[in-house]
Amino acid sequence: MSQLETGEPVADHELPRGDPARPVTIAYIAKSAGVSVPTVSKVINGRSGVSADTRARVEALISQYGYRKSAQRTNMMELVFDRLEHLWGAEIIRGVEQVAREHRVGVVLTEFGPQRDQTNHWIDDAVARRPDCVVTVAQLSNEERDQLRAKGIPFVVFDPTVELPDDVPFVGATSWNGGRSAARHLLKLGHRRIAMVSGPDHVLCCRARQDGYRSAMEGAGLTVDAGHVVRAELTREGGHTAALGLLGRPERPTAIFASNDLQALGVYQAAREMDLRIPHDLSVVGFDDLPIAALVDPPLTTVRQPLTEMAVAATELALALGRGEKTSEAGFELATTLTVRESTAPPTDRRGQR
Amino acid sequence: MSQLETGEPVADHELPRGDPARPVTIAYIAKSAGVSVPTVSKVINGRSGVSADTRARVEALISQYGYRKSAQRTNMMELVFDRLEHLWGAEIIRGVEQVAREHRVGVVLTEFGPQRDQTNHWIDDAVARRPDCVVTVAQLSNEERDQLRAKGIPFVVFDPTVELPDDVPFVGATSWNGGRSAARHLLKLGHRRIAMVSGPDHVLCCRARQDGYRSAMEGAGLTVDAGHVVRAELTREGGHTAALGLLGRPERPTAIFASNDLQALGVYQAAREMDLRIPHDLSVVGFDDLPIAALVDPPLTTVRQPLTEMAVAATELALALGRGEKTSEAGFELATTLTVRESTAPPTDRRGQR
Repeated sequence: MSQLETGEPVADHELPRGDPARPVTIAYIAKSAGVSVPTVSKVINGRSGVSADTRARVEALISQYGYRKSAQRTNMMELVFDRLEHLWGAEIIRGVEQVAREHRVGVVLTEFGPQRDQTNHWIDDAVARRPDCVVTVAQLSNEERDQLRAKGIPFVVFDPTVELPDDVPFVGATSWNGGRSAARHLLKLGHRRIAMVSGPDHVLCCRARQDGYRSAMEGAGLTVDAGHVVRAELTREGGHTAALGLLGRPERPTAIFASNDLQALGVYQAAREMDLRIPHDLSVVGFDDLPIAALVDPPLTTVRQPLTEMAVAATELALALGRGEKTSEAGFELATTLTVRESTAPPTDRRGQR
Repeated sequence: MSQLETGEPVADHELPRGDPARPVTIAYIAKSAGVSVPTVSKVINGRSGVSADTRARVEALISQYGYRKSAQRTNMMELVFDRLEHLWGAEIIRGVEQVAREHRVGVVLTEFGPQRDQTNHWIDDAVARRPDCVVTVAQLSNEERDQLRAKGIPFVVFDPTVELPDDVPFVGATSWNGGRSAARHLLKLGHRRIAMVSGPDHVLCCRARQDGYRSAMEGAGLTVDAGHVVRAELTREGGHTAALGLLGRPERPTAIFASNDLQALGVYQAAREMDLRIPHDLSVVGFDDLPIAALVDPPLTTVRQPLTEMAVAATELALALGRGEKTSEAGFELATTLTVRESTAPPTDRRGQR
């Protein structure tokens, strides 16, 4: 325990004043709250013997200054999912485990599950476990975020699907660039009638993917036909229904860019039903590069989201915050890359010419 | 702490004598080892101040009698994977999480990863975390099992791939029955030339699947042509190579049963390359019913391994062992079920008759 944490008087020049590079000490919190260091320690460690007023005042200061229990690390962290999606959950977990192994940190994994609202004890249990940090794939409520902040537990949001306050660190992927590179790949092959199966409007990354596609089309001097962008759920069924509509149009698209790999598989299904061969009659590009993309026939050209690398980055950031090495980090996006497989080819003119 | 755990003299009639329904107390271990209760407690909790000899003697007795720290539950459990397979890891984790949620138990997830031998601190860290129980998808070493036993931490093996000692509890699937039902489904459709892509010989469940297939064939009065069973790795590539060989034979099989879904996807690939339509020219049955099975074209008929339900059962058993409710359970297998989709149909005679 440092001198500052034992209740010794603190010289004024030692007090950090909003400098993000210098973590705040218990002593500073104590002085600011007008209480003793042991009292602050009790609040941080969830022990009794502190009045509700004092506890609230101390927690507010901890939340404000971002004090972190770097001296009291448990070498445990929390990883939280709303629902563990079978197609990508493991990719994320693998990245977290890789970093946790290196740092010899135990990972407590929680899936909120379908009944989240009724039976969610996670925040209470997590706080009681005193993790060094949290990586969350789930959407935490404002109350949950406030509780973590009040206890000085840093958290990083994995691939946020909704707008976050500016002070919440996150790790995502460059969705807009990804949408652009999918469309540019098809344009370079010679396609002009490139349709898109878009995702739900409230999912941020889907909007970014669509804007990237539109930007590439416009960059090539093409205007996007409004009928060539169809909104659909991010499922195989969504992609299937949307593709049936797109492929039934008089000016049939020669290529379809889907917002994710599942939708792309729905496009495959629609093409088969309409006796269109991929890629000869129709080129298809997906997004995500799930393991399944390499396993289907023909193997799917898709934009790779580096889920494992994103999980590695999120975990490293969260652990660094937990060690008090960084007091803030606005978040960042890792680059997507195009994985070209066998579902894309130059367009065949309907009269048989390339 | 009960009277028995505080070092009071223990009446002889209170001592359990190998009765599996009555967990052993610290006092009984202490008396058997000729040491004090605090000494046993030190050994259990990994504290110092005990000679190596005494520690060894106490640990041997704990291992022998199966003492469990039911009075000192941490409401934490461990889940361990060798490698987190993206196609089924999430199915298993989901089952564990479901039970953990109900019991409000935290799950520490560990993936040993590719470098297991060099850098595996798991057993030391896990023992230090004092979990109530362990569910392991990984193959634990004898030393690891002994350490868990010595600390009174019960463990359950998920779907063991190798022979286990009789006293190791496990939860698996009825692989032999599954192999049988796959073959019987094809026989009922009218197939006679049913080939099998088998798995590696050292993987127990693959041998069971193959024996089930053979049993069904023989039950229908058919002898299995030796050339109709090909061993292959449990991958798409393995299935692809094996299927090319099987489909190139003069008496081509009209159906192929693959040892897992990935192999079945390799059979799809081979069929496409040889211009055989599934199921018109070739019926295909897989094994596992991974999420991918419903997503491919045509959707795959396969034997369902209830991975999530198996994980639920393994976790419930492990937690019950951790509470001292059961002192032994030999393990059990959950039933597989056939999921019929669109990759199987009656055989078409090569001259066009059904």
